[in-house]
Amino acid sequence: MKRLAVFGSTGSIGRQTLDVARNFPDWFKVIGLAAGGNLELLEQQVAEFRPELVYSTALERKSPRRTRSSQIQSRFAPMEEIAAHPDVDIVVVATSGKAGLSPCFAALRAGKPVALANKEVLVMAGDLATAEAKHTGASIMPVDSEHSAIWQCLRGEQAEIERLILTASGGPFRGLPAVELAKVTAAEALRHPTWIMGRKVTIDSATLMNKGLEVIEAHWLFSVPYANIQVVIHPESMIHSMIEFVDGSVKAQLSYPDMHLPIQHALSYPDRLPAQYVPRLDFARTARLSFETPDTGRFPCLALAIEAGKKGGTYPAALCAADEVAVGAFLEGRIGFTGIPLLVEAVLGRHSGIKHPSLQEIMEADARAREDAASIIGAEKL
Amino acid sequence: MKRLAVFGSTGSIGRQTLDVARNFPDWFKVIGLAAGGNLELLEQQVAEFRPELVYSTALERKSPRRTRSSQIQSRFAPMEEIAAHPDVDIVVVATSGKAGLSPCFAALRAGKPVALANKEVLVMAGDLATAEAKHTGASIMPVDSEHSAIWQCLRGEQAEIERLILTASGGPFRGLPAVELAKVTAAEALRHPTWIMGRKVTIDSATLMNKGLEVIEAHWLFSVPYANIQVVIHPESMIHSMIEFVDGSVKAQLSYPDMHLPIQHALSYPDRLPAQYVPRLDFARTARLSFETPDTGRFPCLALAIEAGKKGGTYPAALCAADEVAVGAFLEGRIGFTGIPLLVEAVLGRHSGIKHPSLQEIMEADARAREDAASIIGAEKL
Repeated sequence: MKRLAVFGSTGSIGRQTLDVARNFPDWFKVIGLAAGGNLELLEQQVAEFRPELVYSTALERKSPRRTRSSQIQSRFAPMEEIAAHPDVDIVVVATSGKAGLSPCFAALRAGKPVALANKEVLVMAGDLATAEAKHTGASIMPVDSEHSAIWQCLRGEQAEIERLILTASGGPFRGLPAVELAKVTAAEALRHPTWIMGRKVTIDSATLMNKGLEVIEAHWLFSVPYANIQVVIHPESMIHSMIEFVDGSVKAQLSYPDMHLPIQHALSYPDRLPAQYVPRLDFARTARLSFETPDTGRFPCLALAIEAGKKGGTYPAALCAADEVAVGAFLEGRIGFTGIPLLVEAVLGRHSGIKHPSLQEIMEADARAREDAASIIGAEKL
Repeated sequence: MKRLAVFGSTGSIGRQTLDVARNFPDWFKVIGLAAGGNLELLEQQVAEFRPELVYSTALERKSPRRTRSSQIQSRFAPMEEIAAHPDVDIVVVATSGKAGLSPCFAALRAGKPVALANKEVLVMAGDLATAEAKHTGASIMPVDSEHSAIWQCLRGEQAEIERLILTASGGPFRGLPAVELAKVTAAEALRHPTWIMGRKVTIDSATLMNKGLEVIEAHWLFSVPYANIQVVIHPESMIHSMIEFVDGSVKAQLSYPDMHLPIQHALSYPDRLPAQYVPRLDFARTARLSFETPDTGRFPCLALAIEAGKKGGTYPAALCAADEVAVGAFLEGRIGFTGIPLLVEAVLGRHSGIKHPSLQEIMEADARAREDAASIIGAEKL
């Protein structure tokens, strides 16, 4: 029986994490739940899973109190306390944005395995997070389908990785000419061809920023130099990623796209539990898998992210912050789709990085990049 | 340093095994060489690798003697002695046909790891071979690209296999209408689209008998029931095979088709040595991988083999023998391409199987099936 704390329980990954816990009550017990403003869903989850500990940013903003359902004996506790609580065996960090940093670092400091679905932890603070994990012996288990694929292919391998091959669906605008890209709407960008995800990550998939962030994460998770990480467009989203070994052998992990699978793999590792979600791969139905080289001309975010990753220090934090502001502005109709990479590039151009920043300096870089992004949106037409 | 005995050293797999040994002189030393009638090549190999022990069926037939190159201090020894010799760390069984049985069983009895490229050992005597390996603790390491792929994907996995997915190129006649198949010539059948192999296995690939035999081998190697082994046509021969686990996750192993890679994997396991042979996978060049369901109507050998595997006992031995006679007769122009499955089916129809045969009874079944096949060819037009 593994006891879970789930941060971001009302989001897409959080809800699917609770699906897994619900499906395997003999394997998992939910000890802690933490979420943002969706109090209604959080209370439903508290009523169902009866965690010992609960946290919500909304409750914090009002006043600490017990949840409304009076029969539930859940105690309100700060995120860091939940993450480091002795009853917790695995900390699932499925928050979006910077909110994931604090519980993730609390868990790593306490030596607890983290099932990590939050991108910002490794993109903004990959150096610090992996150093902390190494220091305490905590493991960081990826939940992203791409990194989970690599992790699965690495099982039992001792040899060095020659190359990581991250696959990308290419998003809804893969085939769209450059001139059309400027006109696409938020509604069109939110229609992802293969994956059902949150709004931010769906837009990031359409710009390929998401894949760029995953390259940075892969760099930290698997200690592979950027030069040895390749991105390949694979529209069917069946091969979730691949590893090439020194002998030229390549291993790939495949499934129909469904996030329950990598979530369950992280929670049940090293075991595998029976499938409840995705249909069996059917090669009569899946008659072809195709591959393309990504077009960084039409999708500059991919190259911007990798460049920020290579520069390191506070650059990835500035990238993340600029992208979050840009995606928000695009969803509000304030900038166009092609304005997203322009804004990110402009913010990175203004950024003066720090090489080995503290968490505090990373947060300051984030704040500065947001201010820069806001002022650029105010001043320029993107 | 691993010391190798290579049986079938002058054949396709044997020569590629020696390529690997030549490329990694710090890793491998050739202690024993055994081959059939190609004395000229065997003497070249003896001169290059200077093995302690050497065997050739051709020399046996004449009289035991030292090899002609007088400066070589190789001792002529029976196959069983070479396979079980205390100086040998890995026994590579790359002979074709029944000749592989004797050295393989000698190695397994001596508890030595066998890198197995010979199909007949597991097809004819899978029950006995795996029981012997279990008894002595010897490992059977597959060298076939398909089984090597499965073995590689199994590394580090503890969970049960839900399904094995063996890929098949489909051979040169994959798209040919049934009426055309009767007219194909041996020369056409020997032109394999993706793999360079020996003549027998190339014809077996064209009839899909090869894939059927591999299903039987996979059944014994990985203890998977026939119902859970699926064959998928994959014309590009890039994915060499796949495993589906209970959670629905599928792992695949890929490379450009080159037998050096699985040979090297077996010899270097658990390490991986730098690639010397196959180019790196290039997804700009490899833009698509496609899949089809095999057509057992046009290629009945696949179904015949799986049926013989399911019946077990001496049936697979009879299948092997009938196929060997049939392929020989086809190559000599005595029967047509579609006569191969007809002959195999007819021989299996006459076969009365023994459920748990001894090696002796398997050999008798083999001899009987050959006689039956010969008499059918004499009597009928196939």
